[in-house]
Amino acid sequence: MVRTLIGELSSKVGQEVLIGAVVNIRRDQGKMAFFDFRDRSGVVQGVVFGKPEVLEIAKTLKVESAVFVTGKVNKRPEKMVNANAQNGDIEIEITKLEPLSVAEALPFEFDADINIDTLLDNRPLTLRRSRDRAVFKVQAAILRGYRNALDKRGFTEFVAPALVGSDAEGGAEVFKVEYFNDKTANLATSPQLYKQIMTGVFERVFTIAKIFRAEKSATTRHIAELTQMDFEMGFIRDERDVMAVLEGVIRDTVAEVATTCPDAFKLLGAEVPALPEKPFPILTLREVQQTLGAEEAPDLEPEQERKICAWAKENHGSDFVFVTRFPTKKRAFYTYEAPEEAPFSRGFDLLMRGLEINSGAQRIHNHDALVAKIRDRGMDPEKFSFYLQAFKYGMPPHGGCSTGLERFTMKMLNLENVKEATPFPRDMSRIDKLLSE
Amino acid sequence: MVRTLIGELSSKVGQEVLIGAVVNIRRDQGKMAFFDFRDRSGVVQGVVFGKPEVLEIAKTLKVESAVFVTGKVNKRPEKMVNANAQNGDIEIEITKLEPLSVAEALPFEFDADINIDTLLDNRPLTLRRSRDRAVFKVQAAILRGYRNALDKRGFTEFVAPALVGSDAEGGAEVFKVEYFNDKTANLATSPQLYKQIMTGVFERVFTIAKIFRAEKSATTRHIAELTQMDFEMGFIRDERDVMAVLEGVIRDTVAEVATTCPDAFKLLGAEVPALPEKPFPILTLREVQQTLGAEEAPDLEPEQERKICAWAKENHGSDFVFVTRFPTKKRAFYTYEAPEEAPFSRGFDLLMRGLEINSGAQRIHNHDALVAKIRDRGMDPEKFSFYLQAFKYGMPPHGGCSTGLERFTMKMLNLENVKEATPFPRDMSRIDKLLSE
Repeated sequence: MVRTLIGELSSKVGQEVLIGAVVNIRRDQGKMAFFDFRDRSGVVQGVVFGKPEVLEIAKTLKVESAVFVTGKVNKRPEKMVNANAQNGDIEIEITKLEPLSVAEALPFEFDADINIDTLLDNRPLTLRRSRDRAVFKVQAAILRGYRNALDKRGFTEFVAPALVGSDAEGGAEVFKVEYFNDKTANLATSPQLYKQIMTGVFERVFTIAKIFRAEKSATTRHIAELTQMDFEMGFIRDERDVMAVLEGVIRDTVAEVATTCPDAFKLLGAEVPALPEKPFPILTLREVQQTLGAEEAPDLEPEQERKICAWAKENHGSDFVFVTRFPTKKRAFYTYEAPEEAPFSRGFDLLMRGLEINSGAQRIHNHDALVAKIRDRGMDPEKFSFYLQAFKYGMPPHGGCSTGLERFTMKMLNLENVKEATPFPRDMSRIDKLLSE
Repeated sequence: MVRTLIGELSSKVGQEVLIGAVVNIRRDQGKMAFFDFRDRSGVVQGVVFGKPEVLEIAKTLKVESAVFVTGKVNKRPEKMVNANAQNGDIEIEITKLEPLSVAEALPFEFDADINIDTLLDNRPLTLRRSRDRAVFKVQAAILRGYRNALDKRGFTEFVAPALVGSDAEGGAEVFKVEYFNDKTANLATSPQLYKQIMTGVFERVFTIAKIFRAEKSATTRHIAELTQMDFEMGFIRDERDVMAVLEGVIRDTVAEVATTCPDAFKLLGAEVPALPEKPFPILTLREVQQTLGAEEAPDLEPEQERKICAWAKENHGSDFVFVTRFPTKKRAFYTYEAPEEAPFSRGFDLLMRGLEINSGAQRIHNHDALVAKIRDRGMDPEKFSFYLQAFKYGMPPHGGCSTGLERFTMKMLNLENVKEATPFPRDMSRIDKLLSE
């Protein structure tokens, strides 16, 4: 018999079907056994009744076991109907159970509030919890939404390298790789320079890139291997053009998640991010500080990020707020500074629910200005000769930005730790297993 | 004035427009200058005539310079119309040129037949050639087509890690990374084990993952950093279910490329891959050898891959051919072998135009059988304890496969070297620049 997906059972009432599923729940009740089965399309109840040989197999099937189930799709009696659940008005009267693999007893209650180490020590198992499945369905929707939004706006995807020759951007600590012939390579901390090179090729480009940070940070916001959703665009007038595209992309992405994952928000008790009718509020760094009654400082403290987001939510009904005009010296070397705006740069951050999820800027596009800036920062232009080729042969004014996939997922669902938004997080003490083990 | 895209100019005849563009070609002719401009939407001709101050600027604009151009869109005289070119019936009568950055003279003729080292030494520049832009437009279309095909078939995307704890799969040589606290990590050689774990979560999953191979191979088919398009699916009967999905995905992807990039095939002199009306031909390894009159051997030689592809093209009108039933010992440890089919496995390769572009299999889903196989291969099951959790708690029969993005791109366009299908290829001697430099 051909397999039927659980999501299609409601149209098969009265028919015999075969489903392939995992045991979500099993309850025994005398000579009956009740199951909740799940497959990729949903859940359905099954019942074994008056079939001793099937009941015997049923009792061996622990939660998470995989099984082929044959049975008849019946309407449930009126009083057993659960109108709020998928397939709440039907059940499968099981005639045959074909175990595909039998699970061991779970090491802990699935719905218990487990700590982060238990969560990660048992990741192959904990990813199967409804909570975690919801998180990564949302993450898949973010990826899909973000890419579709950029496709629609004329951006071309490219693949940025993860192995790089030197930490061209400086700053963040880098992981070293033993390359061929005793050479040392580095893991990329950003696809930035390649994204700019590609802007010279396609004018509007994006990449979903792995980046690596060897920072010794053990906060709830840091992981060592991250996924960045980066875009870059040419022929801009200033950073506002980039911000406008980013805002559109964020709106499209939130819409994709809200449309395709409504249950995830319910399950996790999170609200769909609030999008103002008007554009996202934009404040300069100085305006943020004035609004919060804080002293002038060259950057935002995490506490200030939280406060200004609360302010934006209350005053603009927005879970997003842009902050602009950071001091140029606090931004990466390639950040553009207009002479009349010095010492402030054309960089910006996008904050969401208290956390920076995106950072961007207009970039320097003039070759000689870029070389001068590299020297200013005490770096050697020769090390950047590959990158600088793009500028030697003409680059339009351009800018772009980078959204952290894990942070965006975390904030979308109000998770407490970015590791909950990463299927296999790497940090100072863990690569799958604790490294001390 | 608001910028108009070149692709929209044909509807602006008689109007004044502003375009942002790169100089593709410039020709001077006495008191006139002719340009071909390009932006992300296409190309258009521009002409400066009778405007000495504009002509002076025009003469400074070397090829690849970025510029804002103001002018009037005119119909070309009948005899100047080029019906085969985009905007072949219009031109811009230039009234103002605003250089955004002026390019240096190019170091070589753009359309010259340059060697691979020149191509890669000058990558930021050579990526701008129409030939290379076509290649990477096709690559973007492959990524889009592949993902959409899997989305449509109920697969959930996830992000596989690039940093792994040990080379769980063995075999291919791995790059070592200096991790935190004097620990050593490795770069992933495959997302396989994570893909199987995720199959336990979502039943059908895919990932576009970076993988790294420290093999000392300097062929036209090898690079050190690759992009794999991987999927895995549960509740299969055998490997034929995987092959059927793969065939559908390949057909959808070829259609996406053919539809969105018809010019790329023309430009590169390549044909859209031939898809047979019937399913792709499937041969066992033994049948391949018999067809070619070759001796029985446990694997295919590159020369045999080429010959059997030529055979499939001639006899089945197909640029694709599946090969199945490789000896189990030649495949990865997790490959499923049915007792009645021993010593042959349920693995398969998909060949395209003479090269393997995809490899897949049904996998072992029984915990104890998997542990026994790990021991058989002289490995320690304890090292796989994280992965094995998925099997302890129940896994459906499953299988999947992996397509090399760069190889698929290379074969799609009949390129000679996989490095031409990689924007920033890494190999034994190069990370952007030659490592000997």
